[in-house]
Amino acid sequence: MSAEEIGPRDMVLLTDLYELKMVQACWREGLTEEAVFSLHYRSLPASRSFMLSCGLHDALTYLEELRFDEDHLAWLSTVDGLLPEFIRWLREFRFTGGVRALPEGTPVFPHEPLLEVRAPLPEAQLVESYVMNQVHYQTVVASKAIRVVHAAAGRPVVDFGLRRMHGSDAALKGARAFHIAGVAATSNVLAGRIYGIPITGTMAHSYIQAHDDELAAFREFAGFYPATVLLVDTYDTLAGVRKVVALSRELGAAFKVHGVRLDSGDLAELARETRRLLDEAGLRRVQIFASGGLDENSIADLVASGAPIDAFGVGTRMGVSEDAPDLDMAYKLVSYAGRPRLKTSPGKHLLPGSKQVFRVEHAGRATHDVLALQGEDVAGRPLLVPVMAEGKRLPSADPGPSLSRERARREIALLPERLLRNAPPSEPFPVSPSPALVRLDHSVTRELSGDRGSRGSGRRQ
Amino acid sequence: MSAEEIGPRDMVLLTDLYELKMVQACWREGLTEEAVFSLHYRSLPASRSFMLSCGLHDALTYLEELRFDEDHLAWLSTVDGLLPEFIRWLREFRFTGGVRALPEGTPVFPHEPLLEVRAPLPEAQLVESYVMNQVHYQTVVASKAIRVVHAAAGRPVVDFGLRRMHGSDAALKGARAFHIAGVAATSNVLAGRIYGIPITGTMAHSYIQAHDDELAAFREFAGFYPATVLLVDTYDTLAGVRKVVALSRELGAAFKVHGVRLDSGDLAELARETRRLLDEAGLRRVQIFASGGLDENSIADLVASGAPIDAFGVGTRMGVSEDAPDLDMAYKLVSYAGRPRLKTSPGKHLLPGSKQVFRVEHAGRATHDVLALQGEDVAGRPLLVPVMAEGKRLPSADPGPSLSRERARREIALLPERLLRNAPPSEPFPVSPSPALVRLDHSVTRELSGDRGSRGSGRRQ
Repeated sequence: MSAEEIGPRDMVLLTDLYELKMVQACWREGLTEEAVFSLHYRSLPASRSFMLSCGLHDALTYLEELRFDEDHLAWLSTVDGLLPEFIRWLREFRFTGGVRALPEGTPVFPHEPLLEVRAPLPEAQLVESYVMNQVHYQTVVASKAIRVVHAAAGRPVVDFGLRRMHGSDAALKGARAFHIAGVAATSNVLAGRIYGIPITGTMAHSYIQAHDDELAAFREFAGFYPATVLLVDTYDTLAGVRKVVALSRELGAAFKVHGVRLDSGDLAELARETRRLLDEAGLRRVQIFASGGLDENSIADLVASGAPIDAFGVGTRMGVSEDAPDLDMAYKLVSYAGRPRLKTSPGKHLLPGSKQVFRVEHAGRATHDVLALQGEDVAGRPLLVPVMAEGKRLPSADPGPSLSRERARREIALLPERLLRNAPPSEPFPVSPSPALVRLDHSVTRELSGDRGSRGSGRRQ
Repeated sequence: MSAEEIGPRDMVLLTDLYELKMVQACWREGLTEEAVFSLHYRSLPASRSFMLSCGLHDALTYLEELRFDEDHLAWLSTVDGLLPEFIRWLREFRFTGGVRALPEGTPVFPHEPLLEVRAPLPEAQLVESYVMNQVHYQTVVASKAIRVVHAAAGRPVVDFGLRRMHGSDAALKGARAFHIAGVAATSNVLAGRIYGIPITGTMAHSYIQAHDDELAAFREFAGFYPATVLLVDTYDTLAGVRKVVALSRELGAAFKVHGVRLDSGDLAELARETRRLLDEAGLRRVQIFASGGLDENSIADLVASGAPIDAFGVGTRMGVSEDAPDLDMAYKLVSYAGRPRLKTSPGKHLLPGSKQVFRVEHAGRATHDVLALQGEDVAGRPLLVPVMAEGKRLPSADPGPSLSRERARREIALLPERLLRNAPPSEPFPVSPSPALVRLDHSVTRELSGDRGSRGSGRRQ
């Protein structure tokens, strides 16, 4: 099998080997009772005040379609340590469990589950790697894109990230996450096709360069695409703008050019000069687009400077979430066989039990979250909802990117204003464990110390 | 079409819309003469002293297999601005050109082409987005992994990155890039299958947690997998190690456990204590593995401290190249219709013409590179080699990950020692343009100023 033959059905093998080793061990031991795993993150990157949940759609699709075909099984039988009877058992392997999750487009804080998987232990274990691969990345880039969209303060942002995002899957899933976060359009044709996201794009420098004369290139391109955006910085930005003006005089009423794009240099200064040149020529309706290494900080500076820029093209720095390309996310067992579980590794303490997140609002703004046990009766709006039962997604679980985008807009508007400034907030958003969760954590920790004491610390020094 | 149905043949649509718009314009204008595009990067990230070329294999596969099928064409006919006659023309579209490239595993410096594509302009243009998407990412992560491997100073490094790398494609292509860079093994099962990379993996915390007793979990797991690695930090690392010792006493000669894994806490201190406990119990051959948020810096610190760690598991920070997740890479037209081309955007000056890179060595070490014109006779070892002709890869072009790994080892050993210290080098590696390239750059720049002067700057102020 080569990389060129890989398709979605092969994602069942996109797992860490230890998942298969553990699943085989659990199966042989009969550790097949119900487990609950929580997918959450432990701390916010320094430059984030919240994360936006994303990636649930792909996690659910994977869970629904998960199965090993004969080709996979034949190959797995060559892996050291996997037994023939286990390989036979994998033939019937399906995900039959349930999932509760934050709908895509929900602001989420440290230790709050983005999703909880409830299934027989082998099923819930095997799916860890791929589910996290999808939810982690999409949450990371949706959370970055929110910042870019906020910085643009109402001006459209277009995703130009495809070429420098991390591989083909990132380019697709990222475009979808950006859309949910409020990005207006993408340059990515396949993402447009799959997700119905508006696609946009006009010209690169190479088109200009291939002509002996920049004005001739503009004339030809505007002939084919009258309402296009012309890229003016190939040689000298303001000279390029003057050629657009010259073209407008040539064409008269036939000049329909929608805008010019600045892609290098001092964008604020060039935008002001460009606006002046265009306005002097009576081209007030010709817009100015800016691109070139932009992120939320440079966009905020441009907006604050009053630069007359109408829209932003944002590529790499948003596409890889350059300042925070990953999140300390974990998928952890919180309950097995009806008993809450935790771990106490330094810096990685895990709260036990299946949970619910309650968002408490006052006067139209969220004041704090309560992290409670599932089933607890706490004031506030519960955020985790059932999205899959018996291995099938629930119809309401997955409303698609457009409705998730609406949800994101609505949910973010409920956050305290201090979280929306793209600067470290004066105080973080408070998330407190419920009294019942604290009690459970104490009692399980105590019990565990007892276990360790009775069984393991005879040699403790 | 949904994301679940996407396969490799659909990568033809994983392109920026502007590529299609430009290709249609070029086709209508008859701009179909031979173009040369250079894929290169403009500057090193602050923490890198060289980059390692990677991703050529996937670029060549894409170029060989590129075609639009009826389903793609039907959808493209719905895209605003694309004409029916152009869609018909796309039906026969193939990449028929040639490629010269640095073989995978070659150290590469700013402005040096990683590859040059030579083809009729529409073909060379259309392929930009996907070729860069693959080469950019793989070069970024191979270059990160080299640093991690160096820091480990001979101890094996295992890739644990799958779960937090950016999507499924990154997880696969990244594992391949890591292998080329010298990483010993991967946890990624599918990468192991596709690329023949050794796969490894034992247990996660959840397996321990699912048992009521940690020692019982160790006993069961070692029963199934005698030569396994036991994860000891679920509750208390040293108590966990003592349970491994207890198990060794229980099992006597049947105790074959290969190692223990530390995944949290002060790894240096815990490794020393773990070693002491194991050695005291006569378990000198039981190895110590360390993981948990590691990168080249923390590994270098551990190695420098003399911590008795035998191997490292490295995940997220290597997998997303956390300190430098992207590279200022560009794919630029350097020649069209036999005439060299450049651009002069501020900060993005492009050297014209098709090039060759010569690496000059003295006494077994590279002293500098010369960036020359293709066909120039310069002292030194030429690095760009033909890898594709008439749309078909040349047999020598793509030796596979194992030979590319050998090449990387050999080529890196030739670099000056100051580049291999994982610290900013005292001076960067010198890359100088050849006199002929400088002359060409001056003459094309002059000619271009002439063009602009005569055609565009009547209004220059």
